[in-house]
Amino acid sequence: MNIPKLKNLDKNNFFLMAGSCAIENRDLAFEIAEKIKGITDQFGIPFIFKGSYRKANRTKLNSFTGIGDIPALEILKEVGEFYDLPTVTDIHESDEAAIAAPYVDVLQIPAFLCRQTDLLAAAAKTGKAVNIKKGQFMSGPSMGFAVEKVLHENPNAQVFLTDRGNSFGYGDLVVDYRNIPEMQAHGVPVVMDCTHSLQQPNQGTGVTGGKPQLIETIAKAAIAVGADGLFIETHPSPAIAKSDGANMLPLDKLEALLEKLVRVRQAIV
Amino acid sequence: MNIPKLKNLDKNNFFLMAGSCAIENRDLAFEIAEKIKGITDQFGIPFIFKGSYRKANRTKLNSFTGIGDIPALEILKEVGEFYDLPTVTDIHESDEAAIAAPYVDVLQIPAFLCRQTDLLAAAAKTGKAVNIKKGQFMSGPSMGFAVEKVLHENPNAQVFLTDRGNSFGYGDLVVDYRNIPEMQAHGVPVVMDCTHSLQQPNQGTGVTGGKPQLIETIAKAAIAVGADGLFIETHPSPAIAKSDGANMLPLDKLEALLEKLVRVRQAIV
Amino acid sequence: MNIPKLKNLDKNNFFLMAGSCAIENRDLAFEIAEKIKGITDQFGIPFIFKGSYRKANRTKLNSFTGIGDIPALEILKEVGEFYDLPTVTDIHESDEAAIAAPYVDVLQIPAFLCRQTDLLAAAAKTGKAVNIKKGQFMSGPSMGFAVEKVLHENPNAQVFLTDRGNSFGYGDLVVDYRNIPEMQAHGVPVVMDCTHSLQQPNQGTGVTGGKPQLIETIAKAAIAVGADGLFIETHPSPAIAKSDGANMLPLDKLEALLEKLVRVRQAIV
Amino acid sequence: MNIPKLKNLDKNNFFLMAGSCAIENRDLAFEIAEKIKGITDQFGIPFIFKGSYRKANRTKLNSFTGIGDIPALEILKEVGEFYDLPTVTDIHESDEAAIAAPYVDVLQIPAFLCRQTDLLAAAAKTGKAVNIKKGQFMSGPSMGFAVEKVLHENPNAQVFLTDRGNSFGYGDLVVDYRNIPEMQAHGVPVVMDCTHSLQQPNQGTGVTGGKPQLIETIAKAAIAVGADGLFIETHPSPAIAKSDGANMLPLDKLEALLEKLVRVRQAIV
Repeated sequence: MNIPKLKNLDKNNFFLMAGSCAIENRDLAFEIAEKIKGITDQFGIPFIFKGSYRKANRTKLNSFTGIGDIPALEILKEVGEFYDLPTVTDIHESDEAAIAAPYVDVLQIPAFLCRQTDLLAAAAKTGKAVNIKKGQFMSGPSMGFAVEKVLHENPNAQVFLTDRGNSFGYGDLVVDYRNIPEMQAHGVPVVMDCTHSLQQPNQGTGVTGGKPQLIETIAKAAIAVGADGLFIETHPSPAIAKSDGANMLPLDKLEALLEKLVRVRQAIV
Repeated sequence: MNIPKLKNLDKNNFFLMAGSCAIENRDLAFEIAEKIKGITDQFGIPFIFKGSYRKANRTKLNSFTGIGDIPALEILKEVGEFYDLPTVTDIHESDEAAIAAPYVDVLQIPAFLCRQTDLLAAAAKTGKAVNIKKGQFMSGPSMGFAVEKVLHENPNAQVFLTDRGNSFGYGDLVVDYRNIPEMQAHGVPVVMDCTHSLQQPNQGTGVTGGKPQLIETIAKAAIAVGADGLFIETHPSPAIAKSDGANMLPLDKLEALLEKLVRVRQAIV
Repeated sequence: MNIPKLKNLDKNNFFLMAGSCAIENRDLAFEIAEKIKGITDQFGIPFIFKGSYRKANRTKLNSFTGIGDIPALEILKEVGEFYDLPTVTDIHESDEAAIAAPYVDVLQIPAFLCRQTDLLAAAAKTGKAVNIKKGQFMSGPSMGFAVEKVLHENPNAQVFLTDRGNSFGYGDLVVDYRNIPEMQAHGVPVVMDCTHSLQQPNQGTGVTGGKPQLIETIAKAAIAVGADGLFIETHPSPAIAKSDGANMLPLDKLEALLEKLVRVRQAIV
Repeated sequence: MNIPKLKNLDKNNFFLMAGSCAIENRDLAFEIAEKIKGITDQFGIPFIFKGSYRKANRTKLNSFTGIGDIPALEILKEVGEFYDLPTVTDIHESDEAAIAAPYVDVLQIPAFLCRQTDLLAAAAKTGKAVNIKKGQFMSGPSMGFAVEKVLHENPNAQVFLTDRGNSFGYGDLVVDYRNIPEMQAHGVPVVMDCTHSLQQPNQGTGVTGGKPQLIETIAKAAIAVGADGLFIETHPSPAIAKSDGANMLPLDKLEALLEKLVRVRQAIV
């Protein structure tokens, strides 16, 4: 793992990408980062702080899409500097790569966009690490082509792949754990997104549903089969979060969850 | 249907979006347009000529991606003017909307990108008609939110929705014909893409497979249930086409196919 | 088609298997048969009267399972004799084949049971025609093995295959029309079950849901792609039917539906 | 867990249902049972010996279906008595319940048959434990109705539910680990079938395929999320096994696998 400021790499633990879904405001970002940093240092977990500066593919037009790109990116940068943490954010079109790169350490490619060659190349060109989410319509083996698109542009790029489940009928997703070893075969770390893989898309209301009580199930299975990292969105009060509230983990439950997961990790290494 | 240069609208027939997958060269584009125009005029079918100027989401990096954006768009424009036909091409990032719009009559949003709010808005802003493909992971009812995103930006926009199948396991797609009436309920014409709905994605080779012998099956069912239009990629020699050869209809089979489909159409109106 | 008492075979039309889901009582069976016979004779449609004498795989224990096997079978026999119609019923275990065969002309194998070799063989042994429903988990090509199991036992058996949709996530089914030509390639007539393919299984209530307003969509597509027959459950008052009420067609809507379907059929032959 | 002769129940470990797919001959059954008994006693794992006496739903007619029902059942009984082990076999029609029950301790209901009320009732009536496999088309919550059907007939029955994956397109299955806690909510032990959940059904050859290198992945995830038991088919030489060879674990790899799984189990209890 070659990510600036990433700590605890000597602990042989899984790493964690976590934060709120969107950057809602400065105080909240600092509160979440501080809390997660404390917990992950205690357990020896490498931690990357996550926040979206813009939500570009909300189901409905009138959903929250952000507080403004640069203000949100500035907050990410401040959090990263203040807590000496790497940060990650997602980009949606090629020109966002160069805009976002100066503020963060990892650029994330959303699942729907994992086949967009120009976007992958633009992310690679920044020299930042690139986290590609597996499309809900993609097999693990096929994600090797996405990795190649990044490495062709920048052979030294640090790439990860993140699973967030497969389409399973219209209103449900299912995680296929066979994809973890199959994506690791591409020679990159593989992450399980425990938040979005529990979404229930295509709800009539236009608000994606969820089953947050199953986060622990999704995460434990991932660690047991050897996932290198976890992605978890968390919020002090998911019910009032401005996006993805249906699946975020209440922040005060993170410590107990990670404690269990560290035990599973120790059983398999 | 409010599309410039669209003929045969008084015939109460389905309309046809057809052409080769990518614009490969000027001669081929003219050959295909002339042939299809002749056939569709004979049957009284409104015809929109289709060609991609750039293939932005090929599975593999080394696949053909185009002859250059502007040269390909120029060919589309020439075809449209020479044959007095409307044309359609697909765009992948917001800034392509303004680039492509002067050359064509319809902007198409690829299925993977049907939730990208910025892209839909950029297409709407051009004043051109917008054809949104249903994502392989989207329900018909949910596509109403995509229509709203376009109409919010431009209340007078002519919007269509096109079905190209649903993910069905990793290596197959299945067309759900319930989506045709369910998408028509959004108040827009609905098109069946008879080419891409037969794809077999996620093949180990990185080359999407297909079942072109079933194009007639896909098309007949669509017309029978009331689809307003069809989308068919065709090529004089699919085996040597530079993209999507696995599913393109040989051009010399188009006339016989359309003749059958017109009969089905007459039976339901 | 080699079924005793089957009329209208010279009309080059699709055939119809129709009736109520379960045999609820004698009067209702006669009422439904008489009504459908009148309509199908008017349109020149070969008609097989359908009724289940036992519902063996209801989701919930306390659902209606029948009025008694022999009383229900007697009603089927009477209907067949009175109206000079062939009849069909479904069997669930091998010993039911010999029990039911004397009362009906076609034995139907439920979708969940389409791989049970003993059941297929027992049905074949009776000499009656055998209608095998495609499992929701089976491909069209694989159904050839089920046909072989029947023909191995009785090389002269009249076999049909009936599609009733595929599992599509837990709570939905999707019909894949590619299966119609692919099952016809086994050399047998292929039927579309327009009732059960609209089921919404695995509902929390234990009562399977449905979308009966889409029966016409399912049926038109089937006829357009060349299905040899249709299977439709119908009831004078679906809301009070003792099983499958969620998807049965109101009997008074059958005539208008068949009129449309006959027109589609005429367009393709 | 209320199963006669079941040992190691005080070890707070998962239990194991294991054996070859079909009973092929006496020597092989004894060899497999002895080997597994040795390993499971060493790890403190409760062990139930599994063998099918008849394969009733093979894809193809000419596949191996058994050595004769009673000879195979006699072997199961001998194994159970000689090693003082409980045994399990699967039944396919109601009258097999009373036939098989005297020879074994657990009756298993195949996945395709999990909704057959008569079969569930017949199994319950024997007083033996009943292991119901979840249909590839069933949700975990819906399996509560199958449990009810058994308990209604015999309120004291020991019931388990076993997951063997969901249909995922025609040629693949996917395990949904959310079903483990959701089926445990029915108040019964839940088992993961690590063999059949890796099947690749609907292959053109009529021989179901598999991915046996992923057995460890399937099993580790199951134990991590709290599965109560595992089901694993194993054979000294899977390549020459008479059925399901594509997915059986080579017997000499069982010990190393269980050692890893016991460590995962210890991490979660």
